[in-house]
Amino acid sequence: MAQNTAEKTSVTMLGLGAMGAALARAWLADGHPLTVWNRGPARAAALAAEGAKDAATAAEAVAANTMIVVCLLDDTSVEEVLAGTDLVGKDLVNLTTSTPGQARARAEWARERGARYLDGGIMAVPPMIGVPEAGGYVFYSGSREVFERHQETLSVPAGTNFVGEDAGFAALHDVALLSAMYGMFAGAAHAFALIRKEDIDPTALAPLLADWLVSMAPAVHQTAQQLRSGDYTKGVVSNLAMQVAGTPTFLSTAEQQGVSPELLTPYFELMRRRLAEGSGEEDLTGVIDLLVDDRS
Amino acid sequence: MAQNTAEKTSVTMLGLGAMGAALARAWLADGHPLTVWNRGPARAAALAAEGAKDAATAAEAVAANTMIVVCLLDDTSVEEVLAGTDLVGKDLVNLTTSTPGQARARAEWARERGARYLDGGIMAVPPMIGVPEAGGYVFYSGSREVFERHQETLSVPAGTNFVGEDAGFAALHDVALLSAMYGMFAGAAHAFALIRKEDIDPTALAPLLADWLVSMAPAVHQTAQQLRSGDYTKGVVSNLAMQVAGTPTFLSTAEQQGVSPELLTPYFELMRRRLAEGSGEEDLTGVIDLLVDDRS
Ligand SMILES: NC(=O)c1ccc[n+]([C@@H]2O[C@H](COP(=O)([O-])OP(=O)(O)OC[C@H]3O[C@@H](n4cnc5c(N)ncnc54)[C@H](OP(=O)(O)O)[C@@H]3O)[C@@H](O)[C@H]2O)c1
Ligand SMILES: NC(=O)c1ccc[n+]([C@@H]2O[C@H](COP(=O)([O-])OP(=O)(O)OC[C@H]3O[C@@H](n4cnc5c(N)ncnc54)[C@H](OP(=O)(O)O)[C@@H]3O)[C@@H](O)[C@H]2O)c1
Repeated sequence: MAQNTAEKTSVTMLGLGAMGAALARAWLADGHPLTVWNRGPARAAALAAEGAKDAATAAEAVAANTMIVVCLLDDTSVEEVLAGTDLVGKDLVNLTTSTPGQARARAEWARERGARYLDGGIMAVPPMIGVPEAGGYVFYSGSREVFERHQETLSVPAGTNFVGEDAGFAALHDVALLSAMYGMFAGAAHAFALIRKEDIDPTALAPLLADWLVSMAPAVHQTAQQLRSGDYTKGVVSNLAMQVAGTPTFLSTAEQQGVSPELLTPYFELMRRRLAEGSGEEDLTGVIDLLVDDRS
Repeated sequence: MAQNTAEKTSVTMLGLGAMGAALARAWLADGHPLTVWNRGPARAAALAAEGAKDAATAAEAVAANTMIVVCLLDDTSVEEVLAGTDLVGKDLVNLTTSTPGQARARAEWARERGARYLDGGIMAVPPMIGVPEAGGYVFYSGSREVFERHQETLSVPAGTNFVGEDAGFAALHDVALLSAMYGMFAGAAHAFALIRKEDIDPTALAPLLADWLVSMAPAVHQTAQQLRSGDYTKGVVSNLAMQVAGTPTFLSTAEQQGVSPELLTPYFELMRRRLAEGSGEEDLTGVIDLLVDDRS
């Protein structure tokens, strides 16, 4: 299976849950010599049967290679697992989901222990790993040196996108995109709820909904340009005053259909507050200002 | 300008605001004989200069043709404007935004006055009207006969999609899609808020955000299939228990970045409530059940 393994970077993989195992298998399939360790030994044994070296302890796994990839449950488990290992001279790539603050602190912690640190935020689910056409990718931030040295290896399981030397930026991008996705899912949930009691097949609504969301998603480009320039009136088609005037139709429709408006009202309330500040001619962008606490 | 006008259906247009004027110009440009009326006369005079007949009263405009298109501010203005007109034998196409309940009541009202009624929900802004490549379209519901008789004429300003003989369905589809869009915009607002205090250009985040939302929008197909079958566990990749376990990362990140979580918490709260009902193996679809009041 593994050809030209001599040219491929040896990787140590700590954590073989759903995501860690998918990453490990992608490197194995690409011929990378792989040393694995997992807290529960059954998962490591399975990978060993597929060609990985199964280390007895995390310390032994870390000692085996320079490139150390960690994909554990959370930041606390990363600290626990790495506590008894010698990280001096290691390229530590942490693909465990964390907050920007945790990532920054973990980068400092790694630096104190003599390691170079690269943080990652995975924009994929396990079935997309090692399947380039699935479009999954990983945000990386922290040590540009580590990223550049290992970019080819990092590209094996999924696409790569380096977003800055601040170790927290990968997590921040990850959380930003997933937060936006939950907003979209909340909106779609409200839409499906509205038709619940009608003789409308949800699978007939779905393509209309998907096409509409896809056609409206590029609105974020105008939002970004307005945020950058500070002029929230540039390019406005339906201004805030018009949109606030339209909100009773949405709320009445929800009421008529017996649907709680709780997923819509917080955004409408921010629109109303922004309008009350005298921003009727603006786009919806001003809502963002209301979300950010400028004192902190 | 107008060739073969003899073959084109004559249209009466009541209401020449931003949207009504755009519709009127699309029909004029396509060679439809057009009679217009607007409360404030200046707007009708402008259309008359472009080739429309300018009626002195709404009653006169209605008397001029069989096909009557109304695009006014709201349902109340529709009632006011049509009150003094003779609707017997008319094909009334109401493109004024309304709730499903208002549309159903207006359909009944029109029937009592001897008119056939078609309701419309416009999925476009005025600059997209008469520009087929812009992809705008109108949901229609109510009289299938009126829709079929005038489909060619209705297709001139924008695409058409007949969604049922229940006069409220056009409004319901319109509101459902726009509600989902506001959810997506709310999510995007949160995402932009998260990077506000960082050295990250919003125009660098925007393409990542747009691509991500576009790639996640098709998730509504799986939701629809689950709603249809009633089995919310089919095809699940990240189950509700895993997703609820991930929510503290989103909330902590918001806190670290000084961003109010108010646009995320209502959806997370519904996820948590559904999980508490013992639905940890499900997809997010069960949230929809919690939104609908089954007593009404
Ligand atoms: N799955 C996804 O869709 C996905 C997508 C993007 C990002 N991620 C991120 O990837 C990371 C791993 O996710 P996963 O799906 O692989 O989770 P998982 O299947 O639950 O696996 C968790 C892993 O962490 C280990 N672990 C947990 N607590 C530990 C501790 N205290 N000490 C040592 N090991 C510990 C587990 O070891 P045992 O086998 O011994 O329990 C297991 O290897 C998470 O940060 C997740 O947010 C996952
Ligand atoms: N603009 C959009 O992006 C858009 C998109 C989709 C759907 N729509 C819907 O299209 C409809 C019209 O929107 P619009 O953008 O054209 O609005 P608009 O520019 O504000 O125009 C409103 C029109 O309604 C008339 N009107 C208001 N109250 C009236 C009353 N009591 N009696 C008689 N006429 C009255 C106005 O006449 P005067 O000129 O005399 O004031 C004007 O012709 C609305 O239902 C809107 O929701 C608009």
